[in-house]
Amino acid sequence: MIAPANNLGIEIKVLAESENSSAVLATTMVGDFTDPATVTAFANSVDVITFDHEHVPLEILQQLELQGVSVQPPSKALAHAQNKLVMRKALEKIGAPNPVWAEVSSSEQLDNFIAQHGPEVIVKTPIGGYDGKGVRVVSSSAQVSDWLAEPMISSLGGSLLVEQKVKFKRELAQLSARNPAGEFVSWPVVETRQRNGVCSEVLSPAPDATSEMAAEAVKIAKLISESLEVTGNLAVEMFETTDGKLLVNELAMRPHNSGHFTIEGSVTSQFEQHLRAVLNLPLGKTDSLAPVAVMANLLGVSDSKDFMDNYQRVMAEFPQVKIHSYGKAPRLDRKLGHVTVCGDDIASCLNQAEAARDQLNK
Amino acid sequence: MIAPANNLGIEIKVLAESENSSAVLATTMVGDFTDPATVTAFANSVDVITFDHEHVPLEILQQLELQGVSVQPPSKALAHAQNKLVMRKALEKIGAPNPVWAEVSSSEQLDNFIAQHGPEVIVKTPIGGYDGKGVRVVSSSAQVSDWLAEPMISSLGGSLLVEQKVKFKRELAQLSARNPAGEFVSWPVVETRQRNGVCSEVLSPAPDATSEMAAEAVKIAKLISESLEVTGNLAVEMFETTDGKLLVNELAMRPHNSGHFTIEGSVTSQFEQHLRAVLNLPLGKTDSLAPVAVMANLLGVSDSKDFMDNYQRVMAEFPQVKIHSYGKAPRLDRKLGHVTVCGDDIASCLNQAEAARDQLNK
Repeated sequence: MIAPANNLGIEIKVLAESENSSAVLATTMVGDFTDPATVTAFANSVDVITFDHEHVPLEILQQLELQGVSVQPPSKALAHAQNKLVMRKALEKIGAPNPVWAEVSSSEQLDNFIAQHGPEVIVKTPIGGYDGKGVRVVSSSAQVSDWLAEPMISSLGGSLLVEQKVKFKRELAQLSARNPAGEFVSWPVVETRQRNGVCSEVLSPAPDATSEMAAEAVKIAKLISESLEVTGNLAVEMFETTDGKLLVNELAMRPHNSGHFTIEGSVTSQFEQHLRAVLNLPLGKTDSLAPVAVMANLLGVSDSKDFMDNYQRVMAEFPQVKIHSYGKAPRLDRKLGHVTVCGDDIASCLNQAEAARDQLNK
Repeated sequence: MIAPANNLGIEIKVLAESENSSAVLATTMVGDFTDPATVTAFANSVDVITFDHEHVPLEILQQLELQGVSVQPPSKALAHAQNKLVMRKALEKIGAPNPVWAEVSSSEQLDNFIAQHGPEVIVKTPIGGYDGKGVRVVSSSAQVSDWLAEPMISSLGGSLLVEQKVKFKRELAQLSARNPAGEFVSWPVVETRQRNGVCSEVLSPAPDATSEMAAEAVKIAKLISESLEVTGNLAVEMFETTDGKLLVNELAMRPHNSGHFTIEGSVTSQFEQHLRAVLNLPLGKTDSLAPVAVMANLLGVSDSKDFMDNYQRVMAEFPQVKIHSYGKAPRLDRKLGHVTVCGDDIASCLNQAEAARDQLNK
């Protein structure tokens, strides 16, 4: 968000975990985002506080709100991105499409669910998971006995989320933004491809999405955004089931990996939009600048391999590819950067993005 | 250049004139760029030194080069952007199209030129001019008697540049980039419109430019770039004469106002390209992302009026307009920012850009 803040003449301050974070340019405080004193001191130095992850403890944010700090998205909305059980309950209540799910706090309850909806089911820790962490595919409660035992189960709030293993054709994501005044905009629904539970490529727009499906995706996003009073970005990760339905998988309320393509692909990037939205500024157009955009993540291939080593060769071979480095130390499977290609057709953009990514990782 | 440097994983350091410069995000040193010790200390902290203006004294850069610092563009190239007499002589030598010109150091010489090429001519100080400063339209040497008198004339190097007043249809600019390895790329030739000698709008591509004229503009830029061994960006400002010829007006060797449209309008922006070029990295594609892009400068309308006052209204009315604030204090005629609109046709983009600009300045 630093570059668009700078363009828009908005002063941005960052509370970073370490001196060497990728937000170093605007870092004004380094500290622990789970420490109330640190977060409060930071919050008092700005007009609006927002997030690039959802892990700031809710109690800290509630405290800030009581003190009159503008927290965007507000804690009552963010709760649904922090806690998957809170999310499932809320989605059920507002009529957004959930897979079959249950809250379980014992092996009996879980095995019961497996008997009904198995043979395999998805068990998720309600809080703290990301990029496939905190998610297991199991066929018996024994496979999550560590999560069901103390002290883990209490630290998770007393229960786990279990979901049917959805038969899906592919995964989609619908990115949207809403400001406190109620303005709502959405980008094209995208296809997200994962490898080992981590996003590997994003295709915009989702190939062969019918206009009905695209409209349905926006309808779901709007319902969630408005019902939960989300401000800022909302990414709704969804399954397209084999029988052509959309089911909500996860929510994020911040700039999201599924929207990185908007930096080059859209009139307004998700980063600029999130800023505009949380500041209650009018939102920007989400029109695409090119018919198609493809993003491929640069995931660490080892704990030492730095893709910058192959940088010049890739730049020479792929002058149309936009390379984004996050300036992070290499680590296996860590998101170190991404590449984006805009163009006229998915096949050729995907080809180029994957080839550039593979060359960078060689 | 800060945002693309960050994306590309390039560490950028800025020697700024003041704490509050628009480069504050990457400012690592504040000091006087005409002071040899300051510039040398800064240069020793980086691998490559480059510029966002051409006013660092040539002797300082030559000294750095003798010490082995990589100065890009090199002083021998930059000399042509610093000194308009040096430029005219070099262009003449390489066969690039100059207007009729002369070097004059006395009122007799100037009046002689006026008698031959008047009634009106353009007199320019060879160094230190920008945005219409250091340029006068005169019909008698008396109108530049201050420049011809001591100590001014000596401070300018002993002479002035005089040029015929070219009969032109419009002004064009050809932006290109070249790296030390010799790779050369160019963006579409653009039309630049001025108000009181300052760029007010840029239209890309230049409306109704024939393919012959576009090719000729690139040919001139390539000739200059290669002959003068320019590295980084080169902006060649040109006149399109009433009889259909191109004549070189000015040169700039840095990201230039005529190329701001490339931030949203091109696969590779001029800021990313300048970085790639001065670092001798392979250059990026210069393809346009939309058929048309229009940029309008936000020039200060008074010493107090801040366009940020009208910000929200303009954002609401023009969600497709990209607003760029430079974070500068308002001052009459100062370049405080710009707006860019990409789209399908010049007329509607220009309309929107001008309307947004006018609303911001209201």
